[in-house]
Amino acid sequence: MAPEHELRLPEETMRALGHRVIDAIVDHLTGMAAGPVGGRPTEEVMARLASEPLPRAGAADPGKVLDEVHELLRTGNTHPDHPRFLAFVPGPGTYTGVLAAALAAGFAVPTGWRLTGPVSTAVELTTIRWLAGLLGLPEGTGGLFVSGGSTANLTALTVAREEVLKGEGTHLGTAYCSDQTHFSVERALRVLGIGADRVRRLPADTGQRLAPGPLAARVEEDRRAGLLPFAVIANAGTVGTGAVDPLPELAAFCRAEGLWLHVDGAFGAAAALVEEGRAALAGLPLADSLSVDPHKWLFQPAELGCVLLRSPAGLRRTFGVSMPSYLAGAHASGDPLPDPDEGVDFMHHGIQQTREFRALKLWLSLKVFGADAFGGAVAHGIDTARRLGRFIDSHPGTELVTPPSLAVLTFRCVPVVGEDVPDECVDRACLDLMAEGDALVMPTTVAGRRVFRICTINPRTDFTELCEVVVRLHELWSARAEAAGDATARTPGGPA
Amino acid sequence: MAPEHELRLPEETMRALGHRVIDAIVDHLTGMAAGPVGGRPTEEVMARLASEPLPRAGAADPGKVLDEVHELLRTGNTHPDHPRFLAFVPGPGTYTGVLAAALAAGFAVPTGWRLTGPVSTAVELTTIRWLAGLLGLPEGTGGLFVSGGSTANLTALTVAREEVLKGEGTHLGTAYCSDQTHFSVERALRVLGIGADRVRRLPADTGQRLAPGPLAARVEEDRRAGLLPFAVIANAGTVGTGAVDPLPELAAFCRAEGLWLHVDGAFGAAAALVEEGRAALAGLPLADSLSVDPHKWLFQPAELGCVLLRSPAGLRRTFGVSMPSYLAGAHASGDPLPDPDEGVDFMHHGIQQTREFRALKLWLSLKVFGADAFGGAVAHGIDTARRLGRFIDSHPGTELVTPPSLAVLTFRCVPVVGEDVPDECVDRACLDLMAEGDALVMPTTVAGRRVFRICTINPRTDFTELCEVVVRLHELWSARAEAAGDATARTPGGPA
Ligand SMILES: Cc1ncc(COP(=O)(O)O)c(C=O)c1O
Ligand SMILES: Cc1ncc(COP(=O)(O)O)c(C=O)c1O
Repeated sequence: MAPEHELRLPEETMRALGHRVIDAIVDHLTGMAAGPVGGRPTEEVMARLASEPLPRAGAADPGKVLDEVHELLRTGNTHPDHPRFLAFVPGPGTYTGVLAAALAAGFAVPTGWRLTGPVSTAVELTTIRWLAGLLGLPEGTGGLFVSGGSTANLTALTVAREEVLKGEGTHLGTAYCSDQTHFSVERALRVLGIGADRVRRLPADTGQRLAPGPLAARVEEDRRAGLLPFAVIANAGTVGTGAVDPLPELAAFCRAEGLWLHVDGAFGAAAALVEEGRAALAGLPLADSLSVDPHKWLFQPAELGCVLLRSPAGLRRTFGVSMPSYLAGAHASGDPLPDPDEGVDFMHHGIQQTREFRALKLWLSLKVFGADAFGGAVAHGIDTARRLGRFIDSHPGTELVTPPSLAVLTFRCVPVVGEDVPDECVDRACLDLMAEGDALVMPTTVAGRRVFRICTINPRTDFTELCEVVVRLHELWSARAEAAGDATARTPGGPA
Repeated sequence: MAPEHELRLPEETMRALGHRVIDAIVDHLTGMAAGPVGGRPTEEVMARLASEPLPRAGAADPGKVLDEVHELLRTGNTHPDHPRFLAFVPGPGTYTGVLAAALAAGFAVPTGWRLTGPVSTAVELTTIRWLAGLLGLPEGTGGLFVSGGSTANLTALTVAREEVLKGEGTHLGTAYCSDQTHFSVERALRVLGIGADRVRRLPADTGQRLAPGPLAARVEEDRRAGLLPFAVIANAGTVGTGAVDPLPELAAFCRAEGLWLHVDGAFGAAAALVEEGRAALAGLPLADSLSVDPHKWLFQPAELGCVLLRSPAGLRRTFGVSMPSYLAGAHASGDPLPDPDEGVDFMHHGIQQTREFRALKLWLSLKVFGADAFGGAVAHGIDTARRLGRFIDSHPGTELVTPPSLAVLTFRCVPVVGEDVPDECVDRACLDLMAEGDALVMPTTVAGRRVFRICTINPRTDFTELCEVVVRLHELWSARAEAAGDATARTPGGPA
């Protein structure tokens, strides 16, 4: 036995526990579809977790601790990788991504600096190149893997601010997006010192898109007021309805005005892997920067986001630091070591110094399954949304509100003629479905009304089950609508 | 076989590959000490990695791809978890942290929102409480796990800016730290819109610490100039020499001046687990915010940083966003669901929305090994540095430059009387050692001279081997010194 302070388990225990973890994961991935979309812990479990005192002594049997974790993860949370998790943006990771996460942690892979991590740096560069190619971006595109879409947006917008405003007048900088934009954009701008009073969330048009006309008017108005417009943030797939802002028009406008065009494709950019999606995303290669999250529609476990830039040198200009003396030394020689001015040290390209070897997830997954299979998976998500849209329109009592876009659609339940069902019934039906545990659907708001929303990017979702979820939602909604009607009828002073 | 678009391997393949990955990791962790501290890839390998075309088809044998990855990770990078990796801040992760990383990815654990991740949220809250307790911070301390020290610093300083400046006058805000401060602080401030011209990197005193007197003078000068001082960043363990800034004095000053005291203890705060370290870090509980990285001296694989705040409500005030309509819905009801105003949704507490279940690493490791073993591991690192210091001072030809502080020391090789050996020989000796492959030591600068620096936080480092590294460095330095002397002698115009 190793001395206690070495924090080391006996080798055979390590192997046994590791194999058990793998088996638990494989059981989860292969068995999940047959079970509920997740569970909710009992109040007792929650109270125990919350009040547990710091363990001073170690566990007599580490396996027991693993059993506890396994049980908690299996039954206490909702599973974003479950085939009937249809809310938000699902996270249908592949198993190869999981293996990569284990390897990155197990080998403590350094990924910030070529000197200690030459291989990991090379793999990350290649994965970036592959991803840019998959999305049809121009030669020379570069970027960085980050924790997710929120950090990708923050990273891109920091570069935008520095490159356009050159460190001057941050307090006058203004940025533009539609009101359908993900909240991480506004939060990133807040971090950058661009408060909500200088973020123009322009009302989307009837297609939920940013309209170039009102945008141009607002930019002009702000310029006249002495403000400094610097960035337009466009959506390549809003979370709400999958809408794509008019990228070619926005790109032309930004070029003419000297503004940075950042495209938030955290969820939707992956559609560019297939022809149909690439058509829907026309203009994507015109972006100055693009967020795309492999942990969403490129089937990797969290965290794996990516920011891609047409001129990646902006990353180094924005985030580069002069080497501290304990690092600089290694470069201060004529030895065949990486030259700081040549090649990439990723710790100079973003917010982080220490970085997990995230790129391995996508690299390994692409090598094992091949890019064509990835394209097939993306195409399947688009196609599933379209087929489901047809089902919804043909099913009595449901109708589409926004048509399938990328892999998102919204729909409503049609009340009996004359009835006015409160919006709340949509939310309640979703919660009732969640309580049943079979599937997760969340509502959204379109044109001021609550509607059901489904995102179909999980390539392992069964189409028949998907239709059953819609039917069940309609039933749950009808029950709620009926109850609401009764309640209204019974309310003194309510309609007779 | 699942259809290709499902990106799914046969169950038996999944298990077999997973067990292989575990075995590779266990082989690495148990065998590493007997091998080199890392390898360097051949130019051929680097060229192959860099030029590899995007694989369109999948691999006939996924095991072959894993073999390639394994070989690359084993031989192509330097290992920060190796017992003779003595440079920078080593990353001596425990195996339980690796298992947690696999579980977090394998179960796609949601950790941003209580609605879908009640159990993961509860575990993170408890782990934060445990960590605050381990460090001796006051009741009520709260915080957030983030990617690492850089992001912890950014998160804390964003809160500082918002809480002190209240969104006004960011362009006049100034921040204060010593010139020994990690570069991530300056970069974080740059992101926040506080450019280098408003970051006062004050010269450290002879103990490498931020001196309160000059700090006070500079704050006053800046106030007179109409600027808005808002934060002091103090070090609880500089990377260079392990120096601890005078926290009680700085806290008193900040309180009197209405400034935010952020303490960067990314590396060093863990010393507070043991009595001796806690004494060295006196005043730590007075910080408004503290960065501490479990992926450094709390033995977790990257990425696991943490930001802790005396008043954690500042996180929500700074990073909270109004719920978008597709999320808000679930709260719009009387059902027994989490109340947005009560309890924690971590996606409102920092930059990220999607978050990996990082906390599990530390939670699982503390439960398996116990906090006392962690204390023993930290104490061992402090003690090892002290013993090594004695060895260096007793070894002919070497002497300490800065004494062991926390678990860092610096030393020099003593030239033969009268000789003046160029600083460059220190750097060259480190590179020569790296080329030999047995150990990694990096130089730093103290009082204008290059010196050797060693960080002893890896609890699995063998003390005898550590002394051998010092002896070998002395030999390599002597050889370089001799060559430099010869070269100087031969240089026309050089000293005769
Ligand atoms: C369009 C868009 N942008 C940004 C984000 C934020 O990404 P993350 O959750 O990875 O931070 C999302 C997440 O759903 C998104 O859909
Ligand atoms: C004192 C200090 N602060 C900040 C950092 C940055 O931490 P990270 O590399 O996790 O971003 C380090 C890293 O060594 C550090 O030692």
